Amino acid sequence: MDADSGTAGTFGPADGDVGLLSPVSSSPLVAVLTGDRAVLGAILAVESGWAAVLEKAGLAPAGSAAVVASAAEAGRYDAADISLRSQGGGNPVIPLLADLRRHVQALDSANIGAAQAVHASLTSQDVLDTALMLLARNTVEALLADLKSTSTALAALAEDHTETLCVGRSLTQHSLPYTFGLRAGQWFHGLAAAGRQLEGLKLPVQFGGAAGTLAAGTVLTSGTAADPFTLAAALAKQLGLAAAPAPWHTNRLTVTSLGHALASVLDASGKMAADILFLSRPEVAELAEPRAAGRGVSSAMPQKQNPVLSVLIRSAALQGPHLAAQLHLAAANFNDERPDGAWHTEWPALRELLRLALGAAGNLRELVKGLQVFPDAMRRNLDLAGPLLLSEGVTAAVAPLLDDQDGRTGKQQLQDVVHRTLQAPAAEQAGTYRRLLREAIPVGKLTDLRLDELLDPAGYLGQAAEISRRILAAFPDFASPDTDANGANRG
Amino acid sequence: MDADSGTAGTFGPADGDVGLLSPVSSSPLVAVLTGDRAVLGAILAVESGWAAVLEKAGLAPAGSAAVVASAAEAGRYDAADISLRSQGGGNPVIPLLADLRRHVQALDSANIGAAQAVHASLTSQDVLDTALMLLARNTVEALLADLKSTSTALAALAEDHTETLCVGRSLTQHSLPYTFGLRAGQWFHGLAAAGRQLEGLKLPVQFGGAAGTLAAGTVLTSGTAADPFTLAAALAKQLGLAAAPAPWHTNRLTVTSLGHALASVLDASGKMAADILFLSRPEVAELAEPRAAGRGVSSAMPQKQNPVLSVLIRSAALQGPHLAAQLHLAAANFNDERPDGAWHTEWPALRELLRLALGAAGNLRELVKGLQVFPDAMRRNLDLAGPLLLSEGVTAAVAPLLDDQDGRTGKQQLQDVVHRTLQAPAAEQAGTYRRLLREAIPVGKLTDLRLDELLDPAGYLGQAAEISRRILAAFPDFASPDTDANGANRG
Amino acid sequence: MDADSGTAGTFGPADGDVGLLSPVSSSPLVAVLTGDRAVLGAILAVESGWAAVLEKAGLAPAGSAAVVASAAEAGRYDAADISLRSQGGGNPVIPLLADLRRHVQALDSANIGAAQAVHASLTSQDVLDTALMLLARNTVEALLADLKSTSTALAALAEDHTETLCVGRSLTQHSLPYTFGLRAGQWFHGLAAAGRQLEGLKLPVQFGGAAGTLAAGTVLTSGTAADPFTLAAALAKQLGLAAAPAPWHTNRLTVTSLGHALASVLDASGKMAADILFLSRPEVAELAEPRAAGRGVSSAMPQKQNPVLSVLIRSAALQGPHLAAQLHLAAANFNDERPDGAWHTEWPALRELLRLALGAAGNLRELVKGLQVFPDAMRRNLDLAGPLLLSEGVTAAVAPLLDDQDGRTGKQQLQDVVHRTLQAPAAEQAGTYRRLLREAIPVGKLTDLRLDELLDPAGYLGQAAEISRRILAAFPDFASPDTDANGANRG
Amino acid sequence: MDADSGTAGTFGPADGDVGLLSPVSSSPLVAVLTGDRAVLGAILAVESGWAAVLEKAGLAPAGSAAVVASAAEAGRYDAADISLRSQGGGNPVIPLLADLRRHVQALDSANIGAAQAVHASLTSQDVLDTALMLLARNTVEALLADLKSTSTALAALAEDHTETLCVGRSLTQHSLPYTFGLRAGQWFHGLAAAGRQLEGLKLPVQFGGAAGTLAAGTVLTSGTAADPFTLAAALAKQLGLAAAPAPWHTNRLTVTSLGHALASVLDASGKMAADILFLSRPEVAELAEPRAAGRGVSSAMPQKQNPVLSVLIRSAALQGPHLAAQLHLAAANFNDERPDGAWHTEWPALRELLRLALGAAGNLRELVKGLQVFPDAMRRNLDLAGPLLLSEGVTAAVAPLLDDQDGRTGKQQLQDVVHRTLQAPAAEQAGTYRRLLREAIPVGKLTDLRLDELLDPAGYLGQAAEISRRILAAFPDFASPDTDANGANRG
Repeated sequence: MDADSGTAGTFGPADGDVGLLSPVSSSPLVAVLTGDRAVLGAILAVESGWAAVLEKAGLAPAGSAAVVASAAEAGRYDAADISLRSQGGGNPVIPLLADLRRHVQALDSANIGAAQAVHASLTSQDVLDTALMLLARNTVEALLADLKSTSTALAALAEDHTETLCVGRSLTQHSLPYTFGLRAGQWFHGLAAAGRQLEGLKLPVQFGGAAGTLAAGTVLTSGTAADPFTLAAALAKQLGLAAAPAPWHTNRLTVTSLGHALASVLDASGKMAADILFLSRPEVAELAEPRAAGRGVSSAMPQKQNPVLSVLIRSAALQGPHLAAQLHLAAANFNDERPDGAWHTEWPALRELLRLALGAAGNLRELVKGLQVFPDAMRRNLDLAGPLLLSEGVTAAVAPLLDDQDGRTGKQQLQDVVHRTLQAPAAEQAGTYRRLLREAIPVGKLTDLRLDELLDPAGYLGQAAEISRRILAAFPDFASPDTDANGANRG
Repeated sequence: MDADSGTAGTFGPADGDVGLLSPVSSSPLVAVLTGDRAVLGAILAVESGWAAVLEKAGLAPAGSAAVVASAAEAGRYDAADISLRSQGGGNPVIPLLADLRRHVQALDSANIGAAQAVHASLTSQDVLDTALMLLARNTVEALLADLKSTSTALAALAEDHTETLCVGRSLTQHSLPYTFGLRAGQWFHGLAAAGRQLEGLKLPVQFGGAAGTLAAGTVLTSGTAADPFTLAAALAKQLGLAAAPAPWHTNRLTVTSLGHALASVLDASGKMAADILFLSRPEVAELAEPRAAGRGVSSAMPQKQNPVLSVLIRSAALQGPHLAAQLHLAAANFNDERPDGAWHTEWPALRELLRLALGAAGNLRELVKGLQVFPDAMRRNLDLAGPLLLSEGVTAAVAPLLDDQDGRTGKQQLQDVVHRTLQAPAAEQAGTYRRLLREAIPVGKLTDLRLDELLDPAGYLGQAAEISRRILAAFPDFASPDTDANGANRG
Repeated sequence: MDADSGTAGTFGPADGDVGLLSPVSSSPLVAVLTGDRAVLGAILAVESGWAAVLEKAGLAPAGSAAVVASAAEAGRYDAADISLRSQGGGNPVIPLLADLRRHVQALDSANIGAAQAVHASLTSQDVLDTALMLLARNTVEALLADLKSTSTALAALAEDHTETLCVGRSLTQHSLPYTFGLRAGQWFHGLAAAGRQLEGLKLPVQFGGAAGTLAAGTVLTSGTAADPFTLAAALAKQLGLAAAPAPWHTNRLTVTSLGHALASVLDASGKMAADILFLSRPEVAELAEPRAAGRGVSSAMPQKQNPVLSVLIRSAALQGPHLAAQLHLAAANFNDERPDGAWHTEWPALRELLRLALGAAGNLRELVKGLQVFPDAMRRNLDLAGPLLLSEGVTAAVAPLLDDQDGRTGKQQLQDVVHRTLQAPAAEQAGTYRRLLREAIPVGKLTDLRLDELLDPAGYLGQAAEISRRILAAFPDFASPDTDANGANRG
Repeated sequence: MDADSGTAGTFGPADGDVGLLSPVSSSPLVAVLTGDRAVLGAILAVESGWAAVLEKAGLAPAGSAAVVASAAEAGRYDAADISLRSQGGGNPVIPLLADLRRHVQALDSANIGAAQAVHASLTSQDVLDTALMLLARNTVEALLADLKSTSTALAALAEDHTETLCVGRSLTQHSLPYTFGLRAGQWFHGLAAAGRQLEGLKLPVQFGGAAGTLAAGTVLTSGTAADPFTLAAALAKQLGLAAAPAPWHTNRLTVTSLGHALASVLDASGKMAADILFLSRPEVAELAEPRAAGRGVSSAMPQKQNPVLSVLIRSAALQGPHLAAQLHLAAANFNDERPDGAWHTEWPALRELLRLALGAAGNLRELVKGLQVFPDAMRRNLDLAGPLLLSEGVTAAVAPLLDDQDGRTGKQQLQDVVHRTLQAPAAEQAGTYRRLLREAIPVGKLTDLRLDELLDPAGYLGQAAEISRRILAAFPDFASPDTDANGANRG
């Protein structure tokens, strides 16, 4: 590899990243919503929105906004070139602004003074903070569409499999009978709670000027009906963002809370992927990923079907925590009225979180909607543990019926039964356990029918169905059908 | 050091940690609320609260709850011994429960069967999750008391210093005139917003049983007026925690959101500490920490007064991000119905976050309440930047008054003025700038008085006072006096 | 819980932590080597070692070192009290030093001026940095003993199971035949490489004085045969630490590299635990943890045997990354000649890494030494994948023997065979595959015997045995027996 | 923003990232060495290197390697398209391989069977692991060139400023006299130590086949003079990488150690940036960044010169810790023979670390080489602390000369002097201190000349010069001139 080929003259889009090392978010939708072109577009949208606000407030000549809007068409800009020049001031707004002003000048053929509408009284942090909120808003909308599509499918699984028996696992071992419906219900629970948190976020505009005092904005509006606060509110309305009570340039709770919400989506997705990865292993085989042409195949091993969707989701989920931490670290180091490095660390971390969440959500949607469920295998694995899986319930039901014998309580007698059953070979434990129980308690106190009920895992499911029902009822907007807005754009 | 001295026989409280390596949280209040004795107490409170719930529901013999409550007195337990035995089952509830049952047995002199009230239908995750919520609830209460005491003091600073001029700093350099009142107002902003988020948390009980199906609880309540959901609600009421719509054993948003809120408190505290550390440097000297006997002294250097409170707060703030990430990592790895390691990583991370937040908050309260403010130094530093600090505002006001000259706009003419001023020695720039401006624009268009106003930093503060006022108004409960419940217990 | 009980007067050892929330490192050995008593002991060892150095160099009165050594007996100190007072100066050395001076005064009954030997020309960072290196050295020694004991056991497993067939897994799916010997060999590989890295660390003394110029040390030694550098070397020798070419007070590579090495031990342990947790699941059952009284039991579920050792090891491994990052963060923020908070964050992070590594290593040793291996289950799982697991090797061997048919290469013909085999039910695939292969290639080109060999997984192990042999040969000191110095002290 | 525009058809290089949100690494050199084109190039270099190895070993037809080399020209590949298709198998090697085979087929006009030389007996992990090592090797070479260029400049600063007085700072406060030469020397120390660690890394090839047994490689080489180990060694030689004793597919110490070394470079750079950011603040003004056209300017504030180089370096340094942790997390979760998500998280983390380190190193080189040093300001700030900055040394020198007075030792008498000096106004402390000392000790015991020496900060520098000399001597290869290979390519 020859470093000499990297002269400034040849640096261009082709030198950029198109996702080769991050397959989970390699999709057109993610690229369109979060790529550098989208960043550029968002910055330009803020500048152009501001021009509209100024013109409406009579603070820029009539017609300026249209000139700025035209100058702000993303196609006019060379992102690679702006990126290189961003080293000069430390952020991309400064070089982009120089280009924007040039384009406005050139387009202002009527000499109306449209340049007055550009960036007046703003500082680059105002623009970049607001642009990233805009980028986040667009991405979160798409993300929520995916999440709701997935959660609807999970709600259906929860309802369809209310009676599908499987085994509950704790610390890797079999604990009690369970249902696949409740498992799907709890997956729904995690995803819906994370989604609701995301929906509740307020993504505000930022407007403070160079030091956060709105000094230039005050001069700009002095003697007019407007003031800097009404301009900020108008910008929020123009861009469809929330208004902020005050500049938040040094208090980054907005950013860390967005990071936390995105990481929470990844957490819920990761939990699900971890479960599905295990449950679709050949030794377990309770679930399988949906098949699709070209997915999961291995060139060397034709029999192998890799659970690629889950693997990719898990790869995203393992990255969320560090990125959320990066945002907190920035917030904790936000010194002065604008910090000396911390602010710059927010941008890639926030963007990457948006990408991983949206990328994972797209894969998760496909995974859940096409999930193959194998109740027979679930039952087979449930039976692996033998009858003692039920001993908690048997003891609770039978012990009160037993009299003390030789100073041993009913509970202790039943512990003996368990202990003796454990001596039998695995294949015989079911029979042994039933026989010993039968010996321990007369039919008069416990009928054969009732004993069989106690030894049926389906009889020891507790509130599995009711819990699932309550969870779905707590998030009705995540349990109902959605319109699946992103589907068409997934690659 | 002789490892042989570490035989099991001698392991005891004296081998534990008392905070030598974490001075920021070395205080009796922190120890009492978050130490292992508090953990033990919280676990016992859950078990004993459960006994009360069971007895009230008629599911345990009358009188059981009192026996369990007596058996659950923390003084009966040896935390060090329980800690060692916790390796057997992987958590402290299991050995503690063995001891509790022993004590109940011994205290149940009337043989009422009080043991039936112990842990019936619970699993250790139910107890530990709930106990940590209890520990968190107690700590958060104390933390909020500290935060409100601090925020009240910040609100007073913001109001007292509305007109105290200083310089705004961006990327380490002087940007525009600022006020110390707004700086304090923005500190308040960060802290109050983090505090409000903390106040809004719901800390719920956990009740799901061994697999999260409430199976044992269903058997326990069958044939009674109670059901597992009413028991859970009663436990929540008994302990003063929130009720949960369903078991949350595998969905950890509750835990990560608590972590996020605590890290946010640390972020806001860390931002403040970073500012104060800089502003109290000898070269800057705008602020100083409150002095106290024995604090900040250096044995070798008598002239040195270290800003220890800020240093300790910053040390805590730098640790918050990783701990919050640790909680997300657990959530993203919460496989099965109880995970194979992830759950265990939550406990120390959550406890440490509680500690650092409470420890930092105590130091911050003392720091802010006694903060020494030096307006003269602020003014001196403001003047360092010279008159060009005001050129943004001067240009905005003067440029429109100037006619084009030799094809140069008013703005361009003023840029020339700035450029020529920069050629003068620093000490003469004020005079030079005024003179050149005076030459550039006739008195008829700009009076001397108005020119002097434009060159007065106090005239270019924008909305500093109004922003501060709005911030305080947005968080009235954090701006008003509080009763300072923790003060007496701080060490 | 009553916060009022937490008055300063009652704060003492009983308020400390004894490991309730970190079972993986709840052991007497860990407590003895890393607890606050050990920290106190290490600080005192540095002060007392320094006195010895000074006396030997003639810089303190004859007999001083003995007085200081006596005064420095750990039993004289109240760690809880020192911890509280550490808030004053921000570190524990300052209050401890006050106590030490008091004790020296009291013990210097002959008035020899022993106080001159205390801390002369040192600064608290010198003492604390050196003390933590001492603590680390002691812990690393014990850790290496555990690691070597484990790696020896792994080497034995690798050799014993050279021919124990199992299946290799990739992205959760079955890939190729494998051996348990190679799996153990690769576990050995990870652990031995991490151990070797740990062994290679240099843990140096720190000596720089208040600003890192050795100014006081220069005055102290002026006019004598000693100089500050010879004193530093003597202290290194006295304490058994490495000498440093210069003060490293602001360059923390020593600390981050120690953190990296400890995290690497946890990585290797975590990889092993993750594998064992899966391989000992009921559905897989290839391995089982060693049983011990009281370990892994579940009170409610008698049939359940939790893999507690692996769970605890995994819980430690999931915490290593964040702690190593915390150390890097400190290093990256080490401003000035001593930083304003970053230094303080190193102490708990480094100590916790030592604890988790030693705690995990103890559990891992027990796990590996008693690991139960079930070759039959390995074989059963290997057979799950059917004969196509071998198709890579079959194709490689057979394709060159086939002539083109109807324009299809040998490789393509064999892909058809695979494809047709996949249509058969799982149970019949072995027979089908053999039959179709037999039809595809005449006996003259491939004997039945050779065909059977190709269909035997034992014939497609590649270099499994040789790889394992090479790995062991690369780390002879980790493959040979050790004397297991810690065994007796484990709880 | 219209998500609909993101159809798969339009996804291309223009949708990628060119560094808009990461200015610190926005440079052609970084893009060329680490961009997706470089990733693609590295993967192709591995495949083509392998073909050369196979042909040389007689395992592929003569002429194959040339065909593969031609087919592997990067220009033939569409990275964006490969990225999209990488979701199918979860990594970019699989789709790239399909394209490579197609090109080989097309280019093999002589039908020599060149396809046999493609990827034979490799698995995608072999290729991607090796490709990332290649990418790392190229980047590390460029990084070391930058580091050495910087360290040479630092060594010169250290030597030039041996006698440039400044103040040492500890916990933000003035501690003792210091020299700028030693500060530069310690910066050198940090950077050189990190550089040496980086130089010592072994970056090995990976070769294990589908399960890590080299099974296919064994079949491939059976009956030839080669074996899989000799092939691996030949590939290492071909690519200029290190050989590995065994496949390291599941043990990631190589990757985490590379991450640690890169984070260490960032740590040392971040420490320096933090210092320079403070020292170039207007209130301090001891240093200034080199000026360059268009750098550090602020459009609104003409007087403002932002320290952009330092800000960008710090922004990189704050991101290193989390990325290094991400690599450890992958290592700790590397389950099975290839893991179910952890491996995938290594790629972006490792690449980002390479980028940040190289980006920061380029900025640091420019910063250090052009650093403006202001000894007068250093002296002015040194004098701020007044004469008591020297009291440690004065006491050490004078106390032994004093007789006890009224039961007070010489040291105590001098403490009184200090105490009384502190009562005087700051401006008078120098005179007061000298006068009180003069009163305390007769000229006969301490001449005026010696007293003046004791009150001269230049007389209390300890071993500043010697420490610096020793540091430089310990890293001769980092202190000597270099040829600055990257200079021409920096943008």
